[in-house]
Amino acid sequence: MTDIATRVWNHKWKIDPIVRSLIDTDFYKLLMCQSVFRNKRDTQVTFSLINRSTSVPLAHLIDEGELREQLDHIRSLSLTRGESTWLRGNTFYGKRQMFRPDFMEWFENLRLPDYHLERVGDQYELTFEGSWPEVMLWEIPALAVLMELRGRAVLNQMGKFELQVLYARAMTKLWEKVEKLREVPELRIADFGTRRRHSFLWQDWCVQAMLDGLGPAFVGTSNCLIAKNRDLEAIGTNAHELPMVYAALAQDDAALAQAPYDVLADWHEEHEGNLRIILPDTYGTEGFLRNAPDYLAGWTGIRIDSGDPATGAEVAIKWWQDRGEDPRNKLVIFSDGLDENKILELYQQFAGRVRVSFGWGTLLTNDFRGLTPDNGLAPFSLVCKAVRANGNPTVKLSDNPNKAMGPEAEIARYKRVFGVGDQAAMDVVV
Amino acid sequence: MTDIATRVWNHKWKIDPIVRSLIDTDFYKLLMCQSVFRNKRDTQVTFSLINRSTSVPLAHLIDEGELREQLDHIRSLSLTRGESTWLRGNTFYGKRQMFRPDFMEWFENLRLPDYHLERVGDQYELTFEGSWPEVMLWEIPALAVLMELRGRAVLNQMGKFELQVLYARAMTKLWEKVEKLREVPELRIADFGTRRRHSFLWQDWCVQAMLDGLGPAFVGTSNCLIAKNRDLEAIGTNAHELPMVYAALAQDDAALAQAPYDVLADWHEEHEGNLRIILPDTYGTEGFLRNAPDYLAGWTGIRIDSGDPATGAEVAIKWWQDRGEDPRNKLVIFSDGLDENKILELYQQFAGRVRVSFGWGTLLTNDFRGLTPDNGLAPFSLVCKAVRANGNPTVKLSDNPNKAMGPEAEIARYKRVFGVGDQAAMDVVV
Repeated sequence: MTDIATRVWNHKWKIDPIVRSLIDTDFYKLLMCQSVFRNKRDTQVTFSLINRSTSVPLAHLIDEGELREQLDHIRSLSLTRGESTWLRGNTFYGKRQMFRPDFMEWFENLRLPDYHLERVGDQYELTFEGSWPEVMLWEIPALAVLMELRGRAVLNQMGKFELQVLYARAMTKLWEKVEKLREVPELRIADFGTRRRHSFLWQDWCVQAMLDGLGPAFVGTSNCLIAKNRDLEAIGTNAHELPMVYAALAQDDAALAQAPYDVLADWHEEHEGNLRIILPDTYGTEGFLRNAPDYLAGWTGIRIDSGDPATGAEVAIKWWQDRGEDPRNKLVIFSDGLDENKILELYQQFAGRVRVSFGWGTLLTNDFRGLTPDNGLAPFSLVCKAVRANGNPTVKLSDNPNKAMGPEAEIARYKRVFGVGDQAAMDVVV
Repeated sequence: MTDIATRVWNHKWKIDPIVRSLIDTDFYKLLMCQSVFRNKRDTQVTFSLINRSTSVPLAHLIDEGELREQLDHIRSLSLTRGESTWLRGNTFYGKRQMFRPDFMEWFENLRLPDYHLERVGDQYELTFEGSWPEVMLWEIPALAVLMELRGRAVLNQMGKFELQVLYARAMTKLWEKVEKLREVPELRIADFGTRRRHSFLWQDWCVQAMLDGLGPAFVGTSNCLIAKNRDLEAIGTNAHELPMVYAALAQDDAALAQAPYDVLADWHEEHEGNLRIILPDTYGTEGFLRNAPDYLAGWTGIRIDSGDPATGAEVAIKWWQDRGEDPRNKLVIFSDGLDENKILELYQQFAGRVRVSFGWGTLLTNDFRGLTPDNGLAPFSLVCKAVRANGNPTVKLSDNPNKAMGPEAEIARYKRVFGVGDQAAMDVVV
């Protein structure tokens, strides 16, 4: 029987919007946004989309008009009453009223600022300028739009039947991962895959698969809309943009060296418990921990997001031990380039020595590798980062020189200030 | 959006009927039925369901009440106007009005006769008695009902999500077969999988997969309802029940020896071209061909349905050569226990020497092997055969002693009359 209403619904959209809600974003974006709103509200920033996979010619694959339609649609979104009620009333990380009334009032009135889109060769230059708390909310939807439009370009070439088989295969592939993971019921895994997901519906399916297959080993999703719709925990803490912008605002080298700790001092004031997670790699993990103030060792844990993850975890364990902390009470969150085998390997290596948790991203929500003849749906490395703050360029070093960003001279300066020596280069897959 | 109408539709059935149409059956049943209607209309027969896989305890798995409901529903069916129009007006095997008006009139008024159902240990004894043209139409729906009810018993234990993954896996599995097969575009394959299908919807999906994936290499389906709905060729010729019943009606050994040829004489009168396919194995292929009248060598081809298929084809090739026929003009249809590898192997072996075609059954429409933990959806060997005709028991020998049926003394007599010596026993998978 044909469902006429659904058909009409699907055709009444001029476009088929990829992002339909302002909370179809990562939870940590909202936490950071509130922090920025409170501490650095008037900072002027520029965010820019960077395709690290230059072999994927986005401007050839994606029509500029369609891209603009999707971005324009996002600019038309505002928080719905239900979304606002959820943000105001829900318990996050065990805390009621995580989002304060002044922030919520601001959020309820927010429309995302304008974007600047230009085609440069076979890539797009997509930038967002304005006040930090507004511009920062573009990151996740912009990435999701680009990823999905590129996917649609491939899907549009496929027949109805091929599509059905494609999704059957993708489901089978994910379910085989779930079956592997559920052999270790002590795992703790969250979905971190919003930004590079195949599509919203697919991410939602992946979350259901994890929930159904892993039970309590699946601890939640970073996607607020899915967390709300499915009554799951919204997961996430903070990201590199905080130290990157704080650092760019520093007036001199001394202030620069202090900037990453300023970020965590602000965070410390606002959050406790499982939200006190150090992200140490922005300007090199070793130097960061070496110079860290004592109170940081009292934080709950650390997130390892670049470099060799096992090495990063060992460094953290040693650091806690040196500071008189028992690592077995500490949480290590792995979130860089994970797949099921890496998850199991890291778990086996560190279970018992620290508490271990995983933020599983792209290869959870977008593993279509090998499912189309020319691999046209394989995920690729797209990021959207703060590149300027109040006129100064930002810099990211991380623990992998292949992930470094910023003007050369500034990178050199940051390396000097933060005492970063030689780093092992690692391929950036996603 | 919820499709309320579909929901209401699905709930308005007291049961969810497995067979919803009298033409949800194999095409050869209708061809044979017309032949029987013309030549042996008043023969009284008994058909009986036999589960050759005694390890599958059907009476434990299937509720007797539910089974009765399904069978009763089939008894309530009659030919719809659209079905009748299709049978009367469609071209089958290049011929208009394949079904004659007197037969169609009879068929339009037909309701299937009563059944006798009894539980015996962990199996059901299900028999049908009455005039041959009526009773014979029970075979396919009865098999489909038993197969599907057993499947439902397993599916009922599964969650919504497990079901989705199950079908995703089954789709992936079939599609991988299709991808293997389409590397040889010269293949000719038909769906013969109605009787032991997983379900009607699944068979229909399999047919679409074959159509989409194989294009002209997929020549049609034995299922009349699917052929009608999807405008495909209905495929099929004749089966063992004709020689089995003709043989049971024979008055003495001489008549018995002649019975299989009488069947084909009647068929010869009615059909030509690609419908003139010999099914030689009912009482042993070698003896059948040795004693066959000359005109049979002029028929289009042969169907190999038991024994080692390559051996069977070699025997046929040699027979044609001995009778002065060029095997390259002849058609060999393989239809026993095929899977994609067997199909490719037989094709490689015989392409160029004869015309080759495949009737792919159970492992096309019901390959759920390995997809549930205890393999509870694996297909099994269920048949529904004529066991008596006008009071005499029927006998089937075939080219595999494991497929032999009938009272011991009668089997011995048939072996003597048809000169059947030692036979190689082969496992009956499906």
